[in-house]
Amino acid sequence: ERRGAVIDGKSIAGQIRKEIAAEVANLKETVGKVPGLAVVLVGTRKDSETYVRSKKKACEEVGFASFGVTLPEDATQEEIVNCVNQFNDDPEVHGILVQLPLPKHINEEAVVGAVSFEKDVDGFHPINVGTLCMQGRKPLFVPCTPKGCIELLLRSGVELKGKRAVVIGRSNIVGTPAAQLLQRQNATVTVVHSATTNPAEIVREADIVVAALGKAEFVRGDWLKPGAVVIDVGINAVDDPSTKKGYRLVGDVCYKEASQVASMITPVPGGVGPMTIAMLLANTLDAAKRSFGVENA
Amino acid sequence: ERRGAVIDGKSIAGQIRKEIAAEVANLKETVGKVPGLAVVLVGTRKDSETYVRSKKKACEEVGFASFGVTLPEDATQEEIVNCVNQFNDDPEVHGILVQLPLPKHINEEAVVGAVSFEKDVDGFHPINVGTLCMQGRKPLFVPCTPKGCIELLLRSGVELKGKRAVVIGRSNIVGTPAAQLLQRQNATVTVVHSATTNPAEIVREADIVVAALGKAEFVRGDWLKPGAVVIDVGINAVDDPSTKKGYRLVGDVCYKEASQVASMITPVPGGVGPMTIAMLLANTLDAAKRSFGVENA
Ligand SMILES: NC(=O)C1=CN([C@@H]2O[C@H](COP(=O)(O)OP(=O)(O)OC[C@H]3O[C@@H](n4cnc5c(N)ncnc54)[C@H](OP(=O)(O)O)[C@@H]3O)[C@@H](O)[C@H]2O)C=CC1
Ligand SMILES: NC(=O)C1=CN([C@@H]2O[C@H](COP(=O)(O)OP(=O)(O)OC[C@H]3O[C@@H](n4cnc5c(N)ncnc54)[C@H](OP(=O)(O)O)[C@@H]3O)[C@@H](O)[C@H]2O)C=CC1
Repeated sequence: ERRGAVIDGKSIAGQIRKEIAAEVANLKETVGKVPGLAVVLVGTRKDSETYVRSKKKACEEVGFASFGVTLPEDATQEEIVNCVNQFNDDPEVHGILVQLPLPKHINEEAVVGAVSFEKDVDGFHPINVGTLCMQGRKPLFVPCTPKGCIELLLRSGVELKGKRAVVIGRSNIVGTPAAQLLQRQNATVTVVHSATTNPAEIVREADIVVAALGKAEFVRGDWLKPGAVVIDVGINAVDDPSTKKGYRLVGDVCYKEASQVASMITPVPGGVGPMTIAMLLANTLDAAKRSFGVENA
Repeated sequence: ERRGAVIDGKSIAGQIRKEIAAEVANLKETVGKVPGLAVVLVGTRKDSETYVRSKKKACEEVGFASFGVTLPEDATQEEIVNCVNQFNDDPEVHGILVQLPLPKHINEEAVVGAVSFEKDVDGFHPINVGTLCMQGRKPLFVPCTPKGCIELLLRSGVELKGKRAVVIGRSNIVGTPAAQLLQRQNATVTVVHSATTNPAEIVREADIVVAALGKAEFVRGDWLKPGAVVIDVGINAVDDPSTKKGYRLVGDVCYKEASQVASMITPVPGGVGPMTIAMLLANTLDAAKRSFGVENA
């Protein structure tokens, strides 16, 4: 039996971006239009600015139109919502993203809720969450990171139907939608969270483990069933004086131990991380095709 | 250790209806208004007529105003939606219920989706499903049957936090919301469905089992961990020539076997069944109090 095969998220994400670029070129030719993504940034947080910049760059690389508004830190909620509404009304914008976190004086729920569920490329709107959780319904958008997790599994040929999956974490942006997506693939899913008393024992039952709890190297090698497939969503900075920056990034799984036991595993960085932006592009492309009246494959 | 204590849904539901009647009497005195429930029935199915009649009767018993429209079997979708919209606009109606199934020529999703999510006492609207599944959010309404299951557990003093719960079934009206509600009580939840390969083994891990798959006596005694608590949602008619009607009702769990192993168990009938209407009344009362601007306890 093979052990520790690396699921190369960077390479798979690159492949997906190529596929998207080809579709965009084709749309440009046949429909004469391209997908458009709008990003709303409030304030001057360095990390948010970096994220927004890399999203814009990714848009441009695949041929999307990219729209952006930066509002000052002291913008009022009304100003931000107005800005979202302008993008809601703009036919050239197919996806809208509000970069989080917003300044403390702003009600995030109200601002994120102002994004039309038809342009909700983050998949955070209650209608999209609801339809994700409903049999016989299909959400317009699925949150990008968990969508990326499933895409990694599917593109790696991992059978999900009838398998036991354990998702560690139940946040709105990762754990809960990941569990729903695995269940839609007919896995039998258990969700572990901070009140779970015996996480190691439960994880040991799993054929597929998705770790999204935000605790450095929390899942150990001996928590895993031999041959399990591990998707590590965590991105945690741990002190490391031997590096230039003084820290390095590790996942929620102890990679060194886990890669001895798992059949396949995502590295951190270079696993789930690169998939998130690729799925944002995929969601925006889907939205544009819906708006153009072009069939999704 | 005690075995096979009966969770008496009929008695608990009766208690809840008394509590609701007392609140209604109090509202009548202090606010001068009572909760109103509207039921839309299309066609002349005998079973639907029976359900609607018992819902109206339950409303009247607790002092609600009850509104009802019966449309002919050949009503158009537009006529049904118009009827729903009239109730949406009627300030005396706080809850609206469309009796399912609708005739075959009607798009159920469209009709049920026409009910304002603020009057959606069935809890089926995607917004209410979405907010049920989101951390930090609270749905306006939770589907009645799963809400009844949790209420039975809570009123029976069953500790849920940190316990393992297995829900068998993942339908929109029972299994999926039951799993979400158990998780909100901080149980660690596994959802078993028709593609699950080893249901007996998984059920044996559970401290709490909710069976909602619709298969007579599917869950056997030896599937249960000794001392588990069993909530049996199933209502299945099985042939029984010894009875006057020629059939009797059994649950999804083999009661005779399970009651030897479980610490507590709901009977069928008289377990979850009576809770469904009680929760419908509770949802309608909540809606009315929101509309009156009266604090919920
Ligand atoms: N592009 C990417 O790759 C992305 C990576 N991430 C990373 O994924 C991780 C999770 O992110 P996010 O979901 O936003 O985090 P949150 O902090 O929002 O959620 C963490 C979840 O993990 C659960 N949890 C916390 N501690 C434990 C524990 N000891 N045992 C079991 N469960 C626990 C919490 O449970 P409870 O609900 O009970 O509190 C909660 O549901 C982070 O490391 C984050 O950096 C996130 C988004 C994108
Ligand atoms: N007031 C009350 O007490 C109520 C009682 N009920 C009763 O509850 C039961 C369930 O109702 P409902 O949820 O509407 O039923 P559905 O038929 O809509 O859903 C049944 C669920 O059970 C799953 N299932 C079916 N067969 C198996 C199997 N062999 N092993 C594991 N899972 C299986 C299905 O899985 P999959 O998704 O893979 O197909 C599905 O998710 C019925 O007996 C119904 O009469 C229902 C509502 C109210």
